[in-house]
Amino acid sequence: MIKKYKNPIAKKIKRVKIMITVFSGGTGTPKLIQGIKEIYPEEEITVVVNTVENLYMSRGYIAADIDTVMYTFADMIDEEFWYGIKGDTFIVREQLIEMGTTELLRLGDKDRATKLQKAILLEEGWALSDIVELQKDKLGIKARIIPMSDEESEISIVTKEHGEIEFHDFLIKYQCNCEVLEVKYANVSPSPKLIESIEKCDKVIFGPSNPITSIRPIISIDGVEDALKEKEVIAVSPFVGKSAFSGPAGQFMNAFGYETSSKGVAELYKSFLNTLVIDNQDEEFKEEIEEIIPNVIVTNTFMKTIEDKINLAKIILE
Amino acid sequence: MIKKYKNPIAKKIKRVKIMITVFSGGTGTPKLIQGIKEIYPEEEITVVVNTVENLYMSRGYIAADIDTVMYTFADMIDEEFWYGIKGDTFIVREQLIEMGTTELLRLGDKDRATKLQKAILLEEGWALSDIVELQKDKLGIKARIIPMSDEESEISIVTKEHGEIEFHDFLIKYQCNCEVLEVKYANVSPSPKLIESIEKCDKVIFGPSNPITSIRPIISIDGVEDALKEKEVIAVSPFVGKSAFSGPAGQFMNAFGYETSSKGVAELYKSFLNTLVIDNQDEEFKEEIEEIIPNVIVTNTFMKTIEDKINLAKIILE
Repeated sequence: MIKKYKNPIAKKIKRVKIMITVFSGGTGTPKLIQGIKEIYPEEEITVVVNTVENLYMSRGYIAADIDTVMYTFADMIDEEFWYGIKGDTFIVREQLIEMGTTELLRLGDKDRATKLQKAILLEEGWALSDIVELQKDKLGIKARIIPMSDEESEISIVTKEHGEIEFHDFLIKYQCNCEVLEVKYANVSPSPKLIESIEKCDKVIFGPSNPITSIRPIISIDGVEDALKEKEVIAVSPFVGKSAFSGPAGQFMNAFGYETSSKGVAELYKSFLNTLVIDNQDEEFKEEIEEIIPNVIVTNTFMKTIEDKINLAKIILE
Repeated sequence: MIKKYKNPIAKKIKRVKIMITVFSGGTGTPKLIQGIKEIYPEEEITVVVNTVENLYMSRGYIAADIDTVMYTFADMIDEEFWYGIKGDTFIVREQLIEMGTTELLRLGDKDRATKLQKAILLEEGWALSDIVELQKDKLGIKARIIPMSDEESEISIVTKEHGEIEFHDFLIKYQCNCEVLEVKYANVSPSPKLIESIEKCDKVIFGPSNPITSIRPIISIDGVEDALKEKEVIAVSPFVGKSAFSGPAGQFMNAFGYETSSKGVAELYKSFLNTLVIDNQDEEFKEEIEEIIPNVIVTNTFMKTIEDKINLAKIILE
């Protein structure tokens, strides 16, 4: 394992002794987690991870968002793609291609072991949350990582051009170049510790993940929205102006009838949200959003450097 | 792919223009194949491979004997273990162990790709024989390689000490240290080209594989024994005196009521066998065996060097 990087500015942070629960998808929130874990003890962090994009591929079980969160905590994440392990080799993949099988996702060898072990243990009857606990322990992670559900989830995108397609086809095959009419996912039961992880924490944080495909599936689970109403909830908007920081979030927001903007995020989360963090560039919308939810914090939400990430984490935690 | 080694003595061989079919298990016969392929055009060789030991492991489909035959033709075989690919890496395996999953078989990365591709394509509905055809083509092999059956086979060993156990547990977990009472395997249907591969060839060769667990399962398939009776069949005895060259062949012979010797092999194959090749050390038993089957050839059957293998192949083919 790689030695953990501790940024010098981390030492200046006065630690707030509260348990936090972070809702996460695959890219935006892990960046924020990189900041949080520099200034906050891992033992007091719980991350609830979206599972709707999970799928079997090449005999492995791909829980991409979970693995990204694990690799982020273990300082193993490949930050170029925000999936997979940095410096991984591709021997199995290259041999598969040589033999005529090209996989949609580019899996490295160590990363493939993570995926294969999940499939092996699922086949043996393990629950996904127990597998994730084993894996994150083996990677030396002290934070708790909880899949939102142990049930198989499914997500599909209804497009104007191709009808109903699988989410991964939308992302990879069609490179998001479709008009999204609807985003469909089934209701699943909460994993055993999901509701408790909200009830027992002092603060719930939504990272800047895709509100529709990453965060909303967690909120939609029975009991989650009610539990959130009892807590301090702070969210980081993934939008600046009308464009998402990354990925197809905007297309999805529109399909659900929300504006692709921080205001749209406030509308989506308004039943329980206390505070929305928006970017400096969106300062002009602060008052408008404060009519929807109690508090708005304006700051830099671009997380390019580790200092950006730590500064954003400080604002959220203090 | 590794450039094919052509031994200088190979040039001296006068080629016999006949189609041959070789029945093979996992170790003895592949050594003979190394000799045959040096002096015989691959296009005229068909190898029928035992499948009773096939199994799923770690989400891959392990057809160990088939892969050993493929890797032997492709000059990729790891001759230390007679399974796997020489020079292979073990990155996935090491990561699995790091995460707490230790596999019974030691799978290398490229070899794992072979196993994963089989499982991927079986899941897509491919027949095993079509998968093997794809894989051997991709490895540049001109010989035909035919799994004895496309159906799932099972083999178990009834032991005095541990009752009925799986074959791989017998081999690996218990290291063959059991008293074998019975060897059980289910009847399976022939793969589409099995009977034809015997009917259309001019000579059938049984390599020195385990007569009970490698060759007998092929013979037991409906139609095979009748087809063999119409052909010239030559077998190489895996025994010298009362000991097998390698593996637990002796224990199995006894369990079926056969002597663990070349004479036992002659008894087992007598309904169709024309010629048995026995080792120089067994010359004293020649006459005794000739009372059971028509012809006995006495020669060196130890295959330590490539010259040994080629010489044995010459005797069988000429």
